[in-house]
Amino acid sequence: MDKKILWINGVRRVIIADKNMPLMNVLREQLLLTDVKNGCDEGQCGACSVILNDKLTLSCLVKMEKVPDESTVLTVEGIGRPGKLHPIQQAFIFHGVAQCGICTPGFVVSSYALLLENPNPTRQQIRDWFTRHHNVCRCNGYIPYVNAVMDAAAVMRGEKSIKDITFTLPKDGKIWGSRIPRPSAEAKVTGTLDYGGDLGLKLPPDTLQLALVQAEVSHANIKKIDTSEAEKMPGVFKVVTHKDVKGKNRITGLITFPTNKGDGWDRPILNDTKVFQYGDVLAIVCADTKAHAEEAAKKVKVELEVLPAYMSAPEAMAPDAIEIHPGTPNIYFEQKTVKGEDTGPIMEKAAYTVQGEYYLQRQPHLTVEPDVGFAYYDDEGRLTIHSKSIAIHLHHAMIAPGLGVEPDKLRLVQNPAGATFGYKFSPSNEALLGAACMATGRPVFLRYNYHQHMSYTGKRSPMWLKIKVAADKEGRLLAMEGDWSVDHGPYSEFGDLLTLRVNQFMGAGYNIPNIRSIGRTVATNHVWGSAFRAYGSPQSFLASESVIDELAEKMGMDPFELRYKNVYRPGATTPTGQTPEVTPFVAMFDALRPKYVAAKEKAKKESTPQFKKGVGISLGVYGCGLDGTDSSEAAVELTPTGVIVYASWEDHGQGADAGMLGTAHNALLPLEIAPSAIKLVMNDTAITPNSGPAGGSRSQVLTGNAIKVSCEMLLSAMRKPDGSYRTYDEMVAEKIPLKYSGSWTATMASACDDKGQGAPFCTYMYGVFMSEVTVDTQTGKTKVDKVTMMADVGSINNKLVVEGQMYGGIAQGIGLALSEDFEDIHKHDNMRGAGVPYANDIPDTIEVQFFETPRPDGPFGAAGCGELPLTSSHVSVINAIANATGVRIRHLPAYPEKVLAGLQGK
Amino acid sequence: MDKKILWINGVRRVIIADKNMPLMNVLREQLLLTDVKNGCDEGQCGACSVILNDKLTLSCLVKMEKVPDESTVLTVEGIGRPGKLHPIQQAFIFHGVAQCGICTPGFVVSSYALLLENPNPTRQQIRDWFTRHHNVCRCNGYIPYVNAVMDAAAVMRGEKSIKDITFTLPKDGKIWGSRIPRPSAEAKVTGTLDYGGDLGLKLPPDTLQLALVQAEVSHANIKKIDTSEAEKMPGVFKVVTHKDVKGKNRITGLITFPTNKGDGWDRPILNDTKVFQYGDVLAIVCADTKAHAEEAAKKVKVELEVLPAYMSAPEAMAPDAIEIHPGTPNIYFEQKTVKGEDTGPIMEKAAYTVQGEYYLQRQPHLTVEPDVGFAYYDDEGRLTIHSKSIAIHLHHAMIAPGLGVEPDKLRLVQNPAGATFGYKFSPSNEALLGAACMATGRPVFLRYNYHQHMSYTGKRSPMWLKIKVAADKEGRLLAMEGDWSVDHGPYSEFGDLLTLRVNQFMGAGYNIPNIRSIGRTVATNHVWGSAFRAYGSPQSFLASESVIDELAEKMGMDPFELRYKNVYRPGATTPTGQTPEVTPFVAMFDALRPKYVAAKEKAKKESTPQFKKGVGISLGVYGCGLDGTDSSEAAVELTPTGVIVYASWEDHGQGADAGMLGTAHNALLPLEIAPSAIKLVMNDTAITPNSGPAGGSRSQVLTGNAIKVSCEMLLSAMRKPDGSYRTYDEMVAEKIPLKYSGSWTATMASACDDKGQGAPFCTYMYGVFMSEVTVDTQTGKTKVDKVTMMADVGSINNKLVVEGQMYGGIAQGIGLALSEDFEDIHKHDNMRGAGVPYANDIPDTIEVQFFETPRPDGPFGAAGCGELPLTSSHVSVINAIANATGVRIRHLPAYPEKVLAGLQGK
Repeated sequence: MDKKILWINGVRRVIIADKNMPLMNVLREQLLLTDVKNGCDEGQCGACSVILNDKLTLSCLVKMEKVPDESTVLTVEGIGRPGKLHPIQQAFIFHGVAQCGICTPGFVVSSYALLLENPNPTRQQIRDWFTRHHNVCRCNGYIPYVNAVMDAAAVMRGEKSIKDITFTLPKDGKIWGSRIPRPSAEAKVTGTLDYGGDLGLKLPPDTLQLALVQAEVSHANIKKIDTSEAEKMPGVFKVVTHKDVKGKNRITGLITFPTNKGDGWDRPILNDTKVFQYGDVLAIVCADTKAHAEEAAKKVKVELEVLPAYMSAPEAMAPDAIEIHPGTPNIYFEQKTVKGEDTGPIMEKAAYTVQGEYYLQRQPHLTVEPDVGFAYYDDEGRLTIHSKSIAIHLHHAMIAPGLGVEPDKLRLVQNPAGATFGYKFSPSNEALLGAACMATGRPVFLRYNYHQHMSYTGKRSPMWLKIKVAADKEGRLLAMEGDWSVDHGPYSEFGDLLTLRVNQFMGAGYNIPNIRSIGRTVATNHVWGSAFRAYGSPQSFLASESVIDELAEKMGMDPFELRYKNVYRPGATTPTGQTPEVTPFVAMFDALRPKYVAAKEKAKKESTPQFKKGVGISLGVYGCGLDGTDSSEAAVELTPTGVIVYASWEDHGQGADAGMLGTAHNALLPLEIAPSAIKLVMNDTAITPNSGPAGGSRSQVLTGNAIKVSCEMLLSAMRKPDGSYRTYDEMVAEKIPLKYSGSWTATMASACDDKGQGAPFCTYMYGVFMSEVTVDTQTGKTKVDKVTMMADVGSINNKLVVEGQMYGGIAQGIGLALSEDFEDIHKHDNMRGAGVPYANDIPDTIEVQFFETPRPDGPFGAAGCGELPLTSSHVSVINAIANATGVRIRHLPAYPEKVLAGLQGK
Repeated sequence: MDKKILWINGVRRVIIADKNMPLMNVLREQLLLTDVKNGCDEGQCGACSVILNDKLTLSCLVKMEKVPDESTVLTVEGIGRPGKLHPIQQAFIFHGVAQCGICTPGFVVSSYALLLENPNPTRQQIRDWFTRHHNVCRCNGYIPYVNAVMDAAAVMRGEKSIKDITFTLPKDGKIWGSRIPRPSAEAKVTGTLDYGGDLGLKLPPDTLQLALVQAEVSHANIKKIDTSEAEKMPGVFKVVTHKDVKGKNRITGLITFPTNKGDGWDRPILNDTKVFQYGDVLAIVCADTKAHAEEAAKKVKVELEVLPAYMSAPEAMAPDAIEIHPGTPNIYFEQKTVKGEDTGPIMEKAAYTVQGEYYLQRQPHLTVEPDVGFAYYDDEGRLTIHSKSIAIHLHHAMIAPGLGVEPDKLRLVQNPAGATFGYKFSPSNEALLGAACMATGRPVFLRYNYHQHMSYTGKRSPMWLKIKVAADKEGRLLAMEGDWSVDHGPYSEFGDLLTLRVNQFMGAGYNIPNIRSIGRTVATNHVWGSAFRAYGSPQSFLASESVIDELAEKMGMDPFELRYKNVYRPGATTPTGQTPEVTPFVAMFDALRPKYVAAKEKAKKESTPQFKKGVGISLGVYGCGLDGTDSSEAAVELTPTGVIVYASWEDHGQGADAGMLGTAHNALLPLEIAPSAIKLVMNDTAITPNSGPAGGSRSQVLTGNAIKVSCEMLLSAMRKPDGSYRTYDEMVAEKIPLKYSGSWTATMASACDDKGQGAPFCTYMYGVFMSEVTVDTQTGKTKVDKVTMMADVGSINNKLVVEGQMYGGIAQGIGLALSEDFEDIHKHDNMRGAGVPYANDIPDTIEVQFFETPRPDGPFGAAGCGELPLTSSHVSVINAIANATGVRIRHLPAYPEKVLAGLQGK
């Protein structure tokens, strides 16, 4: 330790810090400068960027001993503050760069440093800079950042004005369909939004810091857990094990499928009898400091009997594999599709049949913020757990019995989340926080490091898929057969639903009259499967959109035209036998055709023997909602200054706030209130109604409708006989209630039956993707040059938000196609190792054209949007590689070595 | 605990806090908003003022449960920041309001709230506002605050410009004698200066929080200290007792007077055998949080054998009193003055003699910031103690042997101090911090609450004084006799020196040829005596300046004229027989005379039967330096951008930074460098040379000279044969050293001998005070209407700083005269109880006229300044009360009931 003078944001500060402490930790943990965000802790994400002595620096990598006395440090707070924004921040808001926003302060600082050095950068120079300085954005595909920096630079050069990069309210006052920045935008670009890891630093001083004792093997029987030595370590308050958990010590998967062979009670909170996967938690050390907790965690002695680990579905399905959960077969759920005629005879007779086997990998969510949360007893004596949960009411039900807490004594709150992309549809840290808080009676805080975040939160479940399709000689699809095995890891939650999703989406988009297929969910010892954007559909479309290309190739037909021939038209049915609510595909393909022709010509013209170019097409469909008669609740309250809207519309970063605001504002248009008069109260089970989880692109449709209903109830109460509206004072004077709770249920939908038939969603999203790629045949490396997307997500609430969702989803599709995986628990435990795309890995051009076909059951015609871009964008890349090189990648991701092997095998 | 939304300085923040936690603690300790300062913790000082929901609020008094959700909080940071100052802050800098600066953020907030409510206040409305809202400033006497708010309001109304309240550098570039704001001014008015209590919140996370187990009796034998139960309490790392102290467990008073009967090793670090005073520390609990430490401290069991407590000098001097320190008599030091002829015969023959007995109380320093500090091992393995020490090298020597640490392994650093006024001339918390750090090996932090600060840091030692003077029939003073007993509490440090100070200053200012006196230092069980501004002289002058008035009354002579007749003129000698270095009194009295006459007339005219007005005069003298051949060291280093000045010129708040800057700049004038190019490195025994303590107004003279010498050495090295100066690059090229360490010793001074004769100071300060008061004869309450001061502190380095020192010292003189005391350990343990003056207790007019007689031994003619205004300003008030009412207060303070008793006794 020593004292140093640092000039932080122009202010002289005396710092007393350990010489081995990274600057980031000193800024954040000692000075609470939480505008410096922490993502990966290892220099890979750029969230902690600061300018140290005029040099852009990853503050997590610089130890204090390397920070000279009298150094200057500039953080985002020194660049601009709320109400006094720098043009970079203003441009960031205008372009909607901040989705989850946790990377944004780092990007502000990085952009500031760039523009100091180069006031007039090209787009490519901006991308190179962000790539070189490791600024990762996992939400927006980088394009909005590049646009914003170009604009900010123009303003700083005096070529544009601040007004040019400031949103102005439309004259009619209507924000629906506009590009109004989300309410949280300013807080995000200024770093003033506190995420879980920031709030955790600001808890009361008696908060205990937690460290986990985790399994380092993937399958074992637990013989003994000895905490005695750890209990004696400095600063330790208690070491919590399964013995301290009051309830059933299980997180329930809330199994609703009667054919599931498990009971859903398979996931321990703190493992007691067995280790089911690497990272399973055996004990929680609760201490005064994180360092003490971690030191003591090393002293917990665990005796294990190691068992064979089944790290993939095929391994766990082997005849000699033991049951991972004794009493429950490893294949614990199966779902068939039986649509139309028996497919066997059709296949035999068909002009063309083609079949393929595909593997979609264990895609990691790669959020910049690792899992984090805290818990305490609130003033009502409720165990209160703050986390990144995107399903607070659902998680409430999943963890209460395991913890042994009465439901009315449990409260879940969502912190601002540095993105989830779905992994927080499963509870991750909630029950651990609850158990530690209950066992100690003290506030507790737990932040995973990135290794823990990778190895012990859910991932996209890998799938092994077989598909066969038949077509007549014109290319009309006649039949489809499928078989898939889902590696869902050891914990069953939503594993049945996921298998069903393939029944719903394999072959979706096309009118396939006859289908026979079967899928199964398999327990393994790799990391558990959780939701991920477009849940189940990237696997489904990898099969069906690859095989369509293979069929076209076999037929000698252009894959574009083969698709065009088969897409949903009026009279078509989905794989589950449902009639699509709208059929925009024809118009979308019509609009794409000239672009496709031009792209093909360009690829042909520009291809060289080394750099082969190609174009790939894919379509995607996804449903909005949970299966069947999903429902949501919301409420709205009139106040003296406007209204308050209440909902549990959790925010992954997708823009829940913008969604609520736009919907409520549009529903309340007759009141002519300003957007700023609408206050949002969100995501606290003690305060906000059960709107259901924020997953499956259901929020805009389900909760949007619930908000609309609530607003209509309010309007109805306010309406006077003459059609005008009562003021707040008049309402009070007439003693008319001010708060209205509305709910909405998708009664037009129905769950799928045992044949996989039904109308599971009232509303769908439709998209077509075209990727243009260059493959370096010497290295096998693929570069996506451009993506074009035709998207129909219904009437659009907020264009800025929806556009950002499309960019981000496509970027994740590119990562899925080319680089992302979590297979090797150690090699893939970090952002770079797991293949996160940096700025130069995503093309500078992603062209999205919207077809706003109004949805009959969506509020104001809206569908959801977030899942669509990740349904099958990856397959358009895979198809483009095949188009460029003739190499068909069937086992994702398309690592250069695989492409090279394909090229060499030719 | 619960979560709430607070809008802090316009930014939405989620707060999770205990409902019983005061808002101040949440802002400071959980959010690290240390621009909100903490003084008294009990709503008496105003340092924690914030604007809560548009209302000026003492945030230490508002528990979180009383802070509604969605409240707005404005702190000084939300009003203006470094580089973006609010006009209030600009005016505060311009008027030099911030001395120590710890009250300043609260004053900014308070003033902001006032001007929101009343944009055009009168001076009295400003004073009323500050008084009503409990804004205490202990440094500047409030006048600069009132001036600044008037100016800020004018700027805000558009009647003045920012330029009107901005210092501009004189055209000749010379800052000596100017009103340049001190370098720390901006940090102080913006709240960005971190004091010890702020830095303590920003230490590494493994820092242990300390709680003291203190004696609640004043005198006892210690039978047993049982820490076993406390050791088991939650969060406790260790309970430290005397057994853990490695060294002699004593703080040495560094006795240098051979006649002292003690050895100076009387003060335990952690009490082992005896309790000597209330608050003595028996154990230190080191825990993870302050609350845990305090809880555990209650569990330490102490067995005591209570002894009779001697709470005043007379009690301890009683024949039956036992020795407080066995083996050392309670009267452990005596000092005589023997000057001129034997006084007995002169007294007998003299035309007039008069005698009196006086008591000056235990004046508390009443700093807004309580004692606070922390300790850790630095990277060189040195035990490093940060405190408010104004004597880092001295304290180093005082605590090293007691702790048992090798001198080169001990490092002392001064934190910015929220004022000391001298109490930190003694070590207070340093050795406790050191012991706790050594015993735990961990960083440790300790902040006293205000009760601890009052009861367990040193106070001004009360004195019981007898004086007799003789004059001839013209009023010429012939002789003086004196006798005084000093209640120095149980610890001897500097107790001998203090007694000597009375020999030096009783009767100073007058040429008294014959003196016989004796003083003694007495150990008692009340709180230990430490330095306090003007150390020893307020007691001395209470006696001599009261008795002069009594003599004048007896003679029927105007006390002004009696003084005029006797003040130092060429040929006069001081009580120690020294020839004054300058004799400005005559000029000062001449200048004061017309004001005195006018004041007397005004008082006569305006007096009413109920409200009696009067005028009082006193003079004061104080020496600059430690007794005898004091010396100081400094250094200066040429850098590429300017120079660095190194010195241990500790800052109580008096303006050490301004002192160093002005002195160095003036010494380096030939280099023509800007003030901003002079960097100050201050107050760290590992880095800065031993400049001696910042006490006795010695720094400007001693360290000023050392800086001047250092600068002259540098100039000499830089000077080329042609008289021009080498640049930095030329110096480097010619390999001429860049750093020069200069020292200066007051060889012209000499210590006093056993007859109290000598030339203890090379330089003195001289002042005359005139107070105008109104006494309410119904209540006995005295109000000081105006103070006029004639001051000669030599050539003035910084007018803003010196003026502020005069205002603040006079304010403390008024408090000393009328309200301040620490006698009752419980009733007087807080600011209000101890009689701190609020704004309305200090007159709006304090007129100071400077006589800048250059001092031969002061750098550029400067003397010190800080002590002068508190030498005898209190006696001018006491004399004015006598003038108004005929009531002579001899036992201070002049509480209304005493004045009333006097009036009734007439």
